[in-house]
Amino acid sequence: MTKDVAEEGSFSAKDYHDPPPAAFIDPKELTKWSLYRAVIAEFVATLLFLYITVLTVIGYKSQIDKGGDPCGGVGVLGIAWAFGGMIFVLVYCTAGISGGHINPAVTFGLFLARKVSLPRAILYMVAQCLGAICGVGLVKAFNKTYYNNYGGGANELADGYNKGTGLGAEIIGTFVLVYTVFSATDPKRSARDSHVPVLAPLPIGFAVFMVHLATIPITGTGINPARSFGAAVIYNKEKAWDDQWIFWVGPFIGAAVAAFYHQFILRAAAAKALGSFRSSTHV
Amino acid sequence: MTKDVAEEGSFSAKDYHDPPPAAFIDPKELTKWSLYRAVIAEFVATLLFLYITVLTVIGYKSQIDKGGDPCGGVGVLGIAWAFGGMIFVLVYCTAGISGGHINPAVTFGLFLARKVSLPRAILYMVAQCLGAICGVGLVKAFNKTYYNNYGGGANELADGYNKGTGLGAEIIGTFVLVYTVFSATDPKRSARDSHVPVLAPLPIGFAVFMVHLATIPITGTGINPARSFGAAVIYNKEKAWDDQWIFWVGPFIGAAVAAFYHQFILRAAAAKALGSFRSSTHV
Amino acid sequence: MTKDVAEEGSFSAKDYHDPPPAAFIDPKELTKWSLYRAVIAEFVATLLFLYITVLTVIGYKSQIDKGGDPCGGVGVLGIAWAFGGMIFVLVYCTAGISGGHINPAVTFGLFLARKVSLPRAILYMVAQCLGAICGVGLVKAFNKTYYNNYGGGANELADGYNKGTGLGAEIIGTFVLVYTVFSATDPKRSARDSHVPVLAPLPIGFAVFMVHLATIPITGTGINPARSFGAAVIYNKEKAWDDQWIFWVGPFIGAAVAAFYHQFILRAAAAKALGSFRSSTHV
Amino acid sequence: MTKDVAEEGSFSAKDYHDPPPAAFIDPKELTKWSLYRAVIAEFVATLLFLYITVLTVIGYKSQIDKGGDPCGGVGVLGIAWAFGGMIFVLVYCTAGISGGHINPAVTFGLFLARKVSLPRAILYMVAQCLGAICGVGLVKAFNKTYYNNYGGGANELADGYNKGTGLGAEIIGTFVLVYTVFSATDPKRSARDSHVPVLAPLPIGFAVFMVHLATIPITGTGINPARSFGAAVIYNKEKAWDDQWIFWVGPFIGAAVAAFYHQFILRAAAAKALGSFRSSTHV
Repeated sequence: MTKDVAEEGSFSAKDYHDPPPAAFIDPKELTKWSLYRAVIAEFVATLLFLYITVLTVIGYKSQIDKGGDPCGGVGVLGIAWAFGGMIFVLVYCTAGISGGHINPAVTFGLFLARKVSLPRAILYMVAQCLGAICGVGLVKAFNKTYYNNYGGGANELADGYNKGTGLGAEIIGTFVLVYTVFSATDPKRSARDSHVPVLAPLPIGFAVFMVHLATIPITGTGINPARSFGAAVIYNKEKAWDDQWIFWVGPFIGAAVAAFYHQFILRAAAAKALGSFRSSTHV
Repeated sequence: MTKDVAEEGSFSAKDYHDPPPAAFIDPKELTKWSLYRAVIAEFVATLLFLYITVLTVIGYKSQIDKGGDPCGGVGVLGIAWAFGGMIFVLVYCTAGISGGHINPAVTFGLFLARKVSLPRAILYMVAQCLGAICGVGLVKAFNKTYYNNYGGGANELADGYNKGTGLGAEIIGTFVLVYTVFSATDPKRSARDSHVPVLAPLPIGFAVFMVHLATIPITGTGINPARSFGAAVIYNKEKAWDDQWIFWVGPFIGAAVAAFYHQFILRAAAAKALGSFRSSTHV
Repeated sequence: MTKDVAEEGSFSAKDYHDPPPAAFIDPKELTKWSLYRAVIAEFVATLLFLYITVLTVIGYKSQIDKGGDPCGGVGVLGIAWAFGGMIFVLVYCTAGISGGHINPAVTFGLFLARKVSLPRAILYMVAQCLGAICGVGLVKAFNKTYYNNYGGGANELADGYNKGTGLGAEIIGTFVLVYTVFSATDPKRSARDSHVPVLAPLPIGFAVFMVHLATIPITGTGINPARSFGAAVIYNKEKAWDDQWIFWVGPFIGAAVAAFYHQFILRAAAAKALGSFRSSTHV
Repeated sequence: MTKDVAEEGSFSAKDYHDPPPAAFIDPKELTKWSLYRAVIAEFVATLLFLYITVLTVIGYKSQIDKGGDPCGGVGVLGIAWAFGGMIFVLVYCTAGISGGHINPAVTFGLFLARKVSLPRAILYMVAQCLGAICGVGLVKAFNKTYYNNYGGGANELADGYNKGTGLGAEIIGTFVLVYTVFSATDPKRSARDSHVPVLAPLPIGFAVFMVHLATIPITGTGINPARSFGAAVIYNKEKAWDDQWIFWVGPFIGAAVAAFYHQFILRAAAAKALGSFRSSTHV
């Protein structure tokens, strides 16, 4: 909440260590059990994520239709909590195993920032998409008749919004999420602000919760291509496939902008590169 | 959020200590006051858990019936908060006394993972079931007429779902909970990820909250045999007893799968056992 | 989540220090600015607590009456959040100044456990009651016509519940709160469970949230004599005064039982006293 | 929760260090990249804050009008969560870059307490107002027809409340927020209460959540001049501009009172100044 008093010069000596950038391709990594364990953890986490959230969406809609109490359902607020809360729980559980991405857009952002290698990123994305398909498949198996009637939890553009708006909503929504992920995992963080302890999973979950509150009326809120893809595969209706590109292009652009914003504006990678260049030429 | 940079080999030297497995039966343990104090704490915590949550369910339904404001009640969202929030509070309060199980399925999972001895596990489960009966009994005493009219907070399979679906929902729901419990209490955790501080009770509470959002429309959400048993004993209607086995078999299977997943996949106990075998034969 | 492996004997050497019990009356304390600062902080915190929470209650009821959107109000869930959330914020803000009681029942419980002296306890309770009166007074000044129509935020027994039920609900509700307060501030805690970091204000706020979800339909939820007294003084209707004793006797009994449960069962003060007696006679 | 046992005298030796007050104007600061980075971060954060929150308000109202499910919207509770939750996420993300103000009233309060210099305060406020305009502009671009029909997220005094009430509600609401900010960032805090860890962004977010629950029915809740100004610029209706002064004067008074309360009552700056004066004259 207060400016950094101790920071004497803008390019001063660092009291933290950036981990070295991940190798683009590291053959040794492919021989380790820890990579495959991480891929399994991503698969299971994305499966549980889609299972709980889509079940909440379908169960909520079926309750309204059954009549009884029209206000008893969980509402859009409850759906937003389901998405945000599960991300909190699952990032908490898998952060130490796989990094807790559970989202191809997050994996893409961290790949751009050189935090994960290319093979790892590809394996994660495949595992996430397969996990999402299985998770939504379970929901369909549990709710055969309801599932199709209630939209299958698929992301589609709502009436009255054009494709540009949907794309914009996905870009900004994913930006909020990936920006929070970068902020939460910044190695500079713990060195700099001892007054802001790093509760990484909680703000990440809240970022997902907030974006759902805002954009459920527009796109149903994707900001996670695996989530949109898994629901589209199982639901398999034309509209869901027609709009599918929005839920891949939007999140990937949003993640890229967040990676750029964090690395080049906030971490000032460009300025620091320039600064170190000047130092080396002058000294 | 980033892969473990420091981890050099997959079976590298550990910087953390696994506590030794709990003895199957430890006669010395039975002579200690700390065991009986823990059993009392489990009894009181389960009593408070059922009292607050079932009172929320009954009070919510009575408010709707009394007319007035149809939307003023807490809704399914409020009920899900009651279950998840109480688990957060009670795990926080009792973690240091008894480990904060408050759920026979959690005790069973931790017993399988050799974290608690057999006598302790049995005493805990008995205390949890007695506590649940007393908690629901208090709610009935406070709401004589309402209690039976509003289903007594008992877990029953909803219309339109078959027993297999109910069992599956209980298995996966308990898996989410017990997987979170294992993740939160992993001794490897604090050594490995200093960027993910261990707020154990909060994600455990959220896991319970999320599972309730998803499966209240299917089974009313058990994932805790003591909770289902206590409500069935006090409500004592045929349907609640007919479905009762689902709320014991499902959670125990879910807990066992979570224990297996954590110990053999994520902690790679099997691979490590093999690795140490190889080391000893080669050296 | 796991039993205390390190605990070797039940009455083993302690690795933590209990602060000495507070003097019953400490004349020196009365000359310190820190006492009066604490009393001011309790006054301001209780004022803000009542202002925000009763304003939420009144605003919610006025919105429903104005028609428009019958489901747009915050509902009982929102009211429960207002009470629980404000306690979280205010305990967080005042814990370092006054201990963050904001509730005569909490002060009474901590006095019984010899954590605060008698003069401090009395000054706190007076400040809390005055703060509550001012807070509700502000709400009335801001909502002249609405205030009386919508029950003034006063605690009254709902129709269909007898006085014994109301008293029981207040006793158990306050027990949950004061038990959480004792658990959160136990000096044994940080020494014993490094895996359960002490986020004291959050579980305390959640305990208040949970109790409101459960007992708003019965008594409107007091569990805080200052809150009930302040609303009764400003609302000043017969029913609120007739039931007022419930909201003093209930919370004080609940706080006393929680203090007894924590000191004599969980901390085993009695057993330890006996243990130390034996040691001294044998050695 | 317990009084400060270790505090021996009221003006005893300190075990913490107050950072020196920020210079009123520090020319060197203006040459640093870290200042401009902070200004950019404030701009982006305020943009995202207004984008998510106003989109939630508009989306909620459009859903009700479209018919379908009258209770499915997020309600006032969801709107309050959007404001509070975004402040939690954004303070968490920007605390290390800019201090995470995102609100001219917070900047003003911290300027009065000599935590930020005058040029920094002015630059922050300009960035916040521009960010707010852009954020609301995005919402309008995404919701052309809905935006104006649903009030544009602008703060206006509700019918039935006079200007004095609105001003009072804004003053007290901002007091709650800025008081929490001061409590969360107090350097005395970590030294004094190791039992209250400093989760600064979470209670700050909750303070915003609570104030919205209480005062949405009165003013729509400003407590952030940039938020009110940005919405008024884009909405541009007479009523929003007529009431605009309330949303600048109220928050600035509230922030000033909170700064005074924290510095002179709780931190006892006046008494300490006097005490140090006496020491120096006597010794």
